[in-house]
Amino acid sequence: MPHLKFKEIERAYGFDEVALVPGDVTINPDQTNIDFTVRDFTLSIPILASAMDAIVDTAFAIAFGKLGGLAVLNLEGVQTRYENPEEVLSQIARTPEKQVTSLLQRIYSEPIKDKLISQRIAAIKKGGAICAVSVTPANTKRLAPIAKDAGMDMLVVQSTVTTARHVSKSYRGLILPELCQQVGLPIIVGNCCTYSAALELMRTGIDGLLIGVGPGAACTTREVIGVGVPQITATLHCAAARDAYLKESGKYVAVITDGGIRTGGDLCKAFAAGADAVMIGSPLAQATEAPGKGYHWGMSHSHPALPRGTRVAVGTTGSLEQILFGPTSVTNGTQNLIGALRTGMGVCSARDIKEMHKVKMIIAPSIKTEGKYFQATQNVP
Amino acid sequence: MPHLKFKEIERAYGFDEVALVPGDVTINPDQTNIDFTVRDFTLSIPILASAMDAIVDTAFAIAFGKLGGLAVLNLEGVQTRYENPEEVLSQIARTPEKQVTSLLQRIYSEPIKDKLISQRIAAIKKGGAICAVSVTPANTKRLAPIAKDAGMDMLVVQSTVTTARHVSKSYRGLILPELCQQVGLPIIVGNCCTYSAALELMRTGIDGLLIGVGPGAACTTREVIGVGVPQITATLHCAAARDAYLKESGKYVAVITDGGIRTGGDLCKAFAAGADAVMIGSPLAQATEAPGKGYHWGMSHSHPALPRGTRVAVGTTGSLEQILFGPTSVTNGTQNLIGALRTGMGVCSARDIKEMHKVKMIIAPSIKTEGKYFQATQNVP
Amino acid sequence: MPHLKFKEIERAYGFDEVALVPGDVTINPDQTNIDFTVRDFTLSIPILASAMDAIVDTAFAIAFGKLGGLAVLNLEGVQTRYENPEEVLSQIARTPEKQVTSLLQRIYSEPIKDKLISQRIAAIKKGGAICAVSVTPANTKRLAPIAKDAGMDMLVVQSTVTTARHVSKSYRGLILPELCQQVGLPIIVGNCCTYSAALELMRTGIDGLLIGVGPGAACTTREVIGVGVPQITATLHCAAARDAYLKESGKYVAVITDGGIRTGGDLCKAFAAGADAVMIGSPLAQATEAPGKGYHWGMSHSHPALPRGTRVAVGTTGSLEQILFGPTSVTNGTQNLIGALRTGMGVCSARDIKEMHKVKMIIAPSIKTEGKYFQATQNVP
Amino acid sequence: MPHLKFKEIERAYGFDEVALVPGDVTINPDQTNIDFTVRDFTLSIPILASAMDAIVDTAFAIAFGKLGGLAVLNLEGVQTRYENPEEVLSQIARTPEKQVTSLLQRIYSEPIKDKLISQRIAAIKKGGAICAVSVTPANTKRLAPIAKDAGMDMLVVQSTVTTARHVSKSYRGLILPELCQQVGLPIIVGNCCTYSAALELMRTGIDGLLIGVGPGAACTTREVIGVGVPQITATLHCAAARDAYLKESGKYVAVITDGGIRTGGDLCKAFAAGADAVMIGSPLAQATEAPGKGYHWGMSHSHPALPRGTRVAVGTTGSLEQILFGPTSVTNGTQNLIGALRTGMGVCSARDIKEMHKVKMIIAPSIKTEGKYFQATQNVP
Repeated sequence: MPHLKFKEIERAYGFDEVALVPGDVTINPDQTNIDFTVRDFTLSIPILASAMDAIVDTAFAIAFGKLGGLAVLNLEGVQTRYENPEEVLSQIARTPEKQVTSLLQRIYSEPIKDKLISQRIAAIKKGGAICAVSVTPANTKRLAPIAKDAGMDMLVVQSTVTTARHVSKSYRGLILPELCQQVGLPIIVGNCCTYSAALELMRTGIDGLLIGVGPGAACTTREVIGVGVPQITATLHCAAARDAYLKESGKYVAVITDGGIRTGGDLCKAFAAGADAVMIGSPLAQATEAPGKGYHWGMSHSHPALPRGTRVAVGTTGSLEQILFGPTSVTNGTQNLIGALRTGMGVCSARDIKEMHKVKMIIAPSIKTEGKYFQATQNVP
Repeated sequence: MPHLKFKEIERAYGFDEVALVPGDVTINPDQTNIDFTVRDFTLSIPILASAMDAIVDTAFAIAFGKLGGLAVLNLEGVQTRYENPEEVLSQIARTPEKQVTSLLQRIYSEPIKDKLISQRIAAIKKGGAICAVSVTPANTKRLAPIAKDAGMDMLVVQSTVTTARHVSKSYRGLILPELCQQVGLPIIVGNCCTYSAALELMRTGIDGLLIGVGPGAACTTREVIGVGVPQITATLHCAAARDAYLKESGKYVAVITDGGIRTGGDLCKAFAAGADAVMIGSPLAQATEAPGKGYHWGMSHSHPALPRGTRVAVGTTGSLEQILFGPTSVTNGTQNLIGALRTGMGVCSARDIKEMHKVKMIIAPSIKTEGKYFQATQNVP
Repeated sequence: MPHLKFKEIERAYGFDEVALVPGDVTINPDQTNIDFTVRDFTLSIPILASAMDAIVDTAFAIAFGKLGGLAVLNLEGVQTRYENPEEVLSQIARTPEKQVTSLLQRIYSEPIKDKLISQRIAAIKKGGAICAVSVTPANTKRLAPIAKDAGMDMLVVQSTVTTARHVSKSYRGLILPELCQQVGLPIIVGNCCTYSAALELMRTGIDGLLIGVGPGAACTTREVIGVGVPQITATLHCAAARDAYLKESGKYVAVITDGGIRTGGDLCKAFAAGADAVMIGSPLAQATEAPGKGYHWGMSHSHPALPRGTRVAVGTTGSLEQILFGPTSVTNGTQNLIGALRTGMGVCSARDIKEMHKVKMIIAPSIKTEGKYFQATQNVP
Repeated sequence: MPHLKFKEIERAYGFDEVALVPGDVTINPDQTNIDFTVRDFTLSIPILASAMDAIVDTAFAIAFGKLGGLAVLNLEGVQTRYENPEEVLSQIARTPEKQVTSLLQRIYSEPIKDKLISQRIAAIKKGGAICAVSVTPANTKRLAPIAKDAGMDMLVVQSTVTTARHVSKSYRGLILPELCQQVGLPIIVGNCCTYSAALELMRTGIDGLLIGVGPGAACTTREVIGVGVPQITATLHCAAARDAYLKESGKYVAVITDGGIRTGGDLCKAFAAGADAVMIGSPLAQATEAPGKGYHWGMSHSHPALPRGTRVAVGTTGSLEQILFGPTSVTNGTQNLIGALRTGMGVCSARDIKEMHKVKMIIAPSIKTEGKYFQATQNVP
């Protein structure tokens, strides 16, 4: 039909559309190594907890750190806006769906307090955990020095889409190379989902890149502004950029898939797509230790004029330890994530994350049609 | 299997099957320019309101014009058939689903009154808005002169499918080059969805082309006659024709995607597919100012022998201003459409609509499977 | 992943996966010609009524013939097994779903009566209609002579899959070239769905070929034996075989798409895929004149050991005339099929069926997602 | 979008996405030969019953053998852990869904008794059936000698994924060439789903290979660890490996598709994809003779730390004979599997399984949309 092509469009893939292919050697799960290193910090599990109010408060950060992961505290959330965030979080959990967006808009219009930033960071450090905190690009210049003075170990600069270049008339954009020099600590930036943007960001001197625009359970960016790249494709592209940048500079920048991971299966696929670590939200929001009380909502949900998000009822299903390491009697992949990762690696012949990057992946939409013939049992009296 | 191919068939795409890819530069929404120009008329927002009875009456046209858009009044709808259309519209809203098609068939069999055409146009002009009106090809010769005398500013000639050539025994087809000369005002023609038909229509001297056959929420053309091209593919092809015609003639004919747009996401995708402007129905039918009282139905729904359409209950969700500019607490993309467009453009490195045409697009079916694990909250007590 | 390929698999398409593309010229529906000719018989509408007990009895055959179509009477159904088929049909309509398959198995084990064959054919001839009857290959040698003596005009030899060659130890297979010579009347054979099988069948001397294995609403062949080719692909391949055979022999064998057509849209698509005529079941089972009383079931549903089918509740929605020619207030494409065909042809620049064969077709899965935002109105009080 | 590709991903297919294409010759079902031979054993039907506790106990193994198939007794299930497995099976059937996984974890922690292994094997041999038993790789060295002494005829070594090479620190992996020599009986190994792993396994001296990772009705491997290859693609690849190995060595290793087969249609497709035999679970769990009492669950469902599976309510629908040979009044393909296989072969021009390997297959997603227009009848009063 077309005589002249206006533009080419390529197919992109998400977690549910792919599967991993077993390898030619099987490896016992206990023989796998899943360490993740950023500069001088090494985590024994390659998982970051999302900088979201339903997931990370100081107590959660300490508990998660003890288990080997790294929780990121949102410096622009309820923890730094309210002396007593507990109250606010209860209110969010109690409010009916129809009113929750406007409630969030109200709650997040309260100013951020410098004093609370210092207090929260001090608490995490006192608890013995690595302290990572997140800020948005627009507030980085103001908040980063306060956080550094308070003793943060790692800085995460995060917004829906962050690029190395920004055009604005109202303020001078954040210059990442300057920031890296001033802060002098490991810096992770995001989110990003393409080869070229990833490459540009890596060249600014950062240590890690968050991958994912529009994929999370609590996110409606794609409906609201049409923008989004499914996570498998986004990770594949940014991992390619990482390898290209390594060749170019000799520096290895961590690729961290952020958003959309709900199960052990998704986790395994993210690593096979090229991730060095993952950042997860919903699976951790289900922990007893999570401050969200069984609910979860996104960072853009409280935008005053164009909110993007839904509050998701994830429920409280087990302890953080159980969710990460089992044992479990849940069979849908939402518990024992680390056991699942090690088992998946073993089946796919991967001794470590680098070998997991080489695992074969196929396109295989997960269509479950057994329901037509039989059904998972329910209500057995 | 085939030894000899009977015909080739290519894949086409709709709004829900694609997504936009963020660019390498982010731009503050307030730095974007979304003007749309047709000859001497420049709109500050690139949106036309559909020539449908559930959307445009004189009051709506004036209100929509004040906000920067252009509403098209249907000269063959209830506004020109009934002195008091209000009554008829109430009746449509009150009638049960099963009887509504035959009611519409009855209502639209009432003759069009010349006097009412003049009155409606005068009212819009008096209200200070640009006055655009629509007619079907078969009635154009009779109605266009009346509308011109009454002071219309722009003429829209519209049917399900309109081509530069028409074969009929009962009447001499409308000759578009003649019409363009006689009317002497900007003329927009539609609908159309292919490269070759678009090119032929552009060569008749028109100023804009409506793109879209069978995509709208209130349309069942595809079920009834099997015909339809999904909007992304249709817009891509007609935008290619526009660029080809520009090279051929030096004249830029506006490509206006019409139908199927329900959210800010769809809106952004239409522009990325090559649209210069969009014509929207359902999103505006939800406005307090819309004459449809929360309902919406299509132009072919009242065909006496072969009706195509459904009445859709869109509900009344906010003021026209809120739907276009927010602020909002709705997170599904149906409010603050202009905020969404500017935000989407900023994320995709587009300073204006022409740059939006260059944004990368991917094929990424929107499969939401989180429901299996969690669910958006409902009925929190 | 594969080092050596075991077999190639190609994509096939059904009605719901494609759509027609409007042409560059629009034609008034009343300017289209839809005649269908087999030897000396010309039908004014290119539609055959399926040889199914829920659709064709003698009265229906006469009524359908008067409207321009051709109904095929099944010589192995209830009409020739029972003096009073009315009673049996009532029983089928009254029986609960769970028992209906075994009831059908019982009903169809009653022997076929030669006398009833003659009576039914005589009745149709007396009513002034062209009389076409169907038999299965295994019974053709016995039943065809009886039917010929009784005055049939056309013979349809039909089973799930019929080929020019058959291997059996229990009986000498039906030799089609011999049959064609003996009968001396137009012969239509089916069903078939591939290029090579179609070509072989055409070479036996037949006049028409029924296309379609496993697509009908009342068919479960694909679930039971895994066999089936979606109708668009099947029709495209057999139409290619027809054109190849025409070149080879100078004879034009009619390609008749049989099964799976439910709407005017499907009908239009069948012709665009290369059909010269269609055979339809479910849409006609909805007629007041249909003997099935609002129900519909398939020919293989009563197989004594391996039944394939479901009884489908189609309801009774209008007169045969309304279903074929309208006018209608139904907007889902199931009424005014001929109006829909002529309108679709006009929009696609096709003056006759041969031109309809040249219409462009695209792959465009019909995903309706508006439900997420609005809904077709229901229960308006 | 990508400048450098991180990895290639290919499309894979499952049962519901393909269909078989009729051939140019039709063959009477009674003319087809479906024998399956492994070394000196020839089965008159090419079906193995899954080594699952819901399907095979000693009585079932004898009954299934009499009908021509081969049942595999799981030596690590309830039959060898409990004197009276009947009680345990009743408990599983009675327990509510939410508690069943932890119950299974408890039940399967009971030790395996050597004495029971001998008793069960003796019982099957006494019943006159070929006795095949299954063990996991980790337990093979201990259990295989006991089973051999007790008189087993064939050994199945099975786990989710089994490879020719295994890396472990806790034990010396199972060396398959050694096992084959020591046991001296036919050995079947699985599961496997790729060309290269299949080829390596074939080279160890085994006689048959089970194909399928993650496809069964009672399996959630893909959700939990992201691993799985749809059965059509897996079978196609392993069949290619079989042919390659035959060329290389002159030895024909049986390819046995295991898991995901629910209907006669699936069965036919497995053979067309290259299977020499199939192993089925759910369809047999529906037999009166099945020990699962209408329920079905998988081998990994009882994993103490990372359970994968769901208990599926399959119901009890008929005798084993009826499920295999009919006659039936069930039309969804779950009964008369052998009748369906022979009918499918006949329609596809296949006289035996080797000819079935050559049948054409198409990609044709089974989308049933008739529901929109009509519906299968329910609750007819």
